[in-house]
Amino acid sequence: MKAKIGRALVALGLIIALAGAGLAQEKKAPLTEQYRETAGKIIGAALVDKAGWEKLTYLTTEIGHRLSGSPQLERAVAWAAEAMKADKLDNVRMQPVKVPHWVRGREYVSVVAPVERSLPMLGLGGSIATPPEGVTAPVVVVSSFDELEALGQEKISGNIVVYDVPFTGYGPTVRYRSIGAARAAKLGAVGMLLRSVTGRSLYTPHTGAMDTKPGEATVPAAAITAEDAAWMHRMSDAGKEVRVKLYMEAKMLPDADSANVIGEIRGSEKPDEIVVMGGHFDSWDVGQGAQDDGASCIAAWQALTILKQLGFQPRRTLRVVFWTNEENGSRGGQAYREALGADIAKHVAAIEMDGGAEKPLGFGFSISGVDPNANEPRYTAAMAKLQQIGKLLEGIEAGEITRGGGGADISPLMRDGVPGLAQRTTGEHYFDWHHTNADTLDKIEPANFRKAIAMLAVMGYVLADMPERLVEPAK
Amino acid sequence: MKAKIGRALVALGLIIALAGAGLAQEKKAPLTEQYRETAGKIIGAALVDKAGWEKLTYLTTEIGHRLSGSPQLERAVAWAAEAMKADKLDNVRMQPVKVPHWVRGREYVSVVAPVERSLPMLGLGGSIATPPEGVTAPVVVVSSFDELEALGQEKISGNIVVYDVPFTGYGPTVRYRSIGAARAAKLGAVGMLLRSVTGRSLYTPHTGAMDTKPGEATVPAAAITAEDAAWMHRMSDAGKEVRVKLYMEAKMLPDADSANVIGEIRGSEKPDEIVVMGGHFDSWDVGQGAQDDGASCIAAWQALTILKQLGFQPRRTLRVVFWTNEENGSRGGQAYREALGADIAKHVAAIEMDGGAEKPLGFGFSISGVDPNANEPRYTAAMAKLQQIGKLLEGIEAGEITRGGGGADISPLMRDGVPGLAQRTTGEHYFDWHHTNADTLDKIEPANFRKAIAMLAVMGYVLADMPERLVEPAK
Repeated sequence: MKAKIGRALVALGLIIALAGAGLAQEKKAPLTEQYRETAGKIIGAALVDKAGWEKLTYLTTEIGHRLSGSPQLERAVAWAAEAMKADKLDNVRMQPVKVPHWVRGREYVSVVAPVERSLPMLGLGGSIATPPEGVTAPVVVVSSFDELEALGQEKISGNIVVYDVPFTGYGPTVRYRSIGAARAAKLGAVGMLLRSVTGRSLYTPHTGAMDTKPGEATVPAAAITAEDAAWMHRMSDAGKEVRVKLYMEAKMLPDADSANVIGEIRGSEKPDEIVVMGGHFDSWDVGQGAQDDGASCIAAWQALTILKQLGFQPRRTLRVVFWTNEENGSRGGQAYREALGADIAKHVAAIEMDGGAEKPLGFGFSISGVDPNANEPRYTAAMAKLQQIGKLLEGIEAGEITRGGGGADISPLMRDGVPGLAQRTTGEHYFDWHHTNADTLDKIEPANFRKAIAMLAVMGYVLADMPERLVEPAK
Repeated sequence: MKAKIGRALVALGLIIALAGAGLAQEKKAPLTEQYRETAGKIIGAALVDKAGWEKLTYLTTEIGHRLSGSPQLERAVAWAAEAMKADKLDNVRMQPVKVPHWVRGREYVSVVAPVERSLPMLGLGGSIATPPEGVTAPVVVVSSFDELEALGQEKISGNIVVYDVPFTGYGPTVRYRSIGAARAAKLGAVGMLLRSVTGRSLYTPHTGAMDTKPGEATVPAAAITAEDAAWMHRMSDAGKEVRVKLYMEAKMLPDADSANVIGEIRGSEKPDEIVVMGGHFDSWDVGQGAQDDGASCIAAWQALTILKQLGFQPRRTLRVVFWTNEENGSRGGQAYREALGADIAKHVAAIEMDGGAEKPLGFGFSISGVDPNANEPRYTAAMAKLQQIGKLLEGIEAGEITRGGGGADISPLMRDGVPGLAQRTTGEHYFDWHHTNADTLDKIEPANFRKAIAMLAVMGYVLADMPERLVEPAK
């Protein structure tokens, strides 16, 4: 019992000490104080905002998914550009981008023996077609590339390889989607089926891009559900041969026309200095592209609209960009970088939102070439500023600034020196929905979406308005 | 600060008081002491058991789902009876039961305007077919029967009713599956689509039985995903007409032959007194019937097999029953009751497992006609005994005895006086998988399955062996 009271006293002491430290830190946080009142107005407006949700509803409900090359993506691009103008954003424009144009076509997977059953599936982005008669072959189930290699050409040749790889996080597991078809092709496989890259399944296949090198041998490749991959694995363990027919009409067409959508609030003092934020407007050709990445795009847009409506014009230009073709080419991010040329030196910061619309937590931060944990002076100084801004978001629990951040669309900017932030969320269910027909508006809590608008508006505004740049350019 | 320490002291006092009470209670628990050593042997054997999981793997992997009337169900029945004999259970037999024979046939739902899209769906069990050309009509989306009635014949007639009912628990929501088609038919609808009865969806439709009265007007009825129901609702809110084609070949065939599977450990002293436990062996015609209810059947069976192997023969007979046709007729439970005749008086207790195979918590208990909260003396005395037995399961955290329990298969027994127990689990995800293609073996943690074997073996054995009956028969 004594120990208990003792611990309680120590804990209480710590709380007091921490509270004291917090107050002391706040006094040394000029950005926090300088923008406290402004942030309050911005956050308040975002948390009662209605128009952002209406835009997201329209995008997901009436336009739907938006794969590069699809009419839906171009409809979305045109709509967004028009509506940004209607919102009175400055300098709204479409930046033309040629994008890869892969189409899925008709496709199916059927078990033909020892039972007959049609399986839900999604061809992997970039896959080739099967011959017109499909491919029909026994499956060989492996849990890893090591198992595949151990079986070798003799056991793999003429079969369909099934990768039943346990989900140990997106990074380690998605490798099989990226290069699994090529690895199987090398050993003479005639097709590849991938256990969908997810930790939770309700019999839902997940698509996504492959990373086949030009000229590399490959095979038709599709994702099946975790349930069916596990079933084939158990049948195989029981010594039962499962024969499958895979049929895919997938093909790559000539590059299509698309565009990045750009809108701004022009800076009042240094309009050539830019803070850019946004997400990717394309999606896979399933679901509604809600979490990935419609909600982030609309949140960034609405952040600017709210600032405009409140009459907050920052010193620098605050820009929103909807990058096109992140999912299967990243051409939008590349085109944006290329168009900047030497002007990239005037990009003060880039914020990418591509982690879904769950409860936001804050931002991760990186400077390319700087180890976030090495206490490099420029990085440390920038982190201190970001943390001061983050304190303004404590009231919506979205102000945590962590080490390490970036994203596919802003990586060409970051590679050339632009400091990069990534929005972070709880990410509890993101990979349940990712690249599936379940990536739909009903998965988004309006309250979380409004918080995302608030955090982007505050972070974007302060970065664009604060007296010094976030990171002074290297000499 | 004082308040804090004060509260800590009070809390500590409470802990001591509760611990004391616990010890005192244990001394007054003769069943706990009497069976402590036996329970240890049973639990130990169950927690290292392998054969139960192998049986469940075979059932779900090589037989699969088992709707009444299907060859899979009869294959499963024959296999179980043979394998129970191989396990040396006593008096293994198949009890013939005629079961309804509904078949799904080919079926689909397509949106035909304003976009064209095929939707995942599952016809509802017992639904009628559409005409051969299907039904094509605009949808009218409602959230409740009140909304349906408010729209009335004028707005409903000639349309397909979509029930987009928020999931507020299985009971209140499943009503729309049961009687939604008949309610829509009354107002002249030509079809019914149901938002699947679930709180979480990854674009997964859930089937299940309808409850249409003989001769009642009805319409073809199918479940669609929560995502598509929400989408249709938003389209409707936006004033956009969604037209759908529903095609179903569903039909009811003449009753089919099936059977309950029964095995026992004959009692050493009172073999005519019976403790019966089990689950239903049939499933819907999707997934693998793993959580619903294959795992429970196999766990009950394996409980008996382990007792047999350990050489534990209770005084009364301990019986396992796999009831047939719970999902769409409950004929197995009825036939079992009918076959007993007056011998039902010798049924000491019935345990039903039909809540899935998540982490088990304990048992709920009811005596038909007795309010579990009214402190009726027979009920209170039985609860005290069950709690003594429950204490033996504390080590696997599965010994909680709560008020209220039963199940569809044992309800004909309970109605005629047999005390009933229902196994309880955390039930966190049960309705995510329920009646879907995602009800597969991969959703079951082997550790939870082993605990279920242990809890059934201990509860079943002690109920069958303890000196007094759980509830003395009413005079």
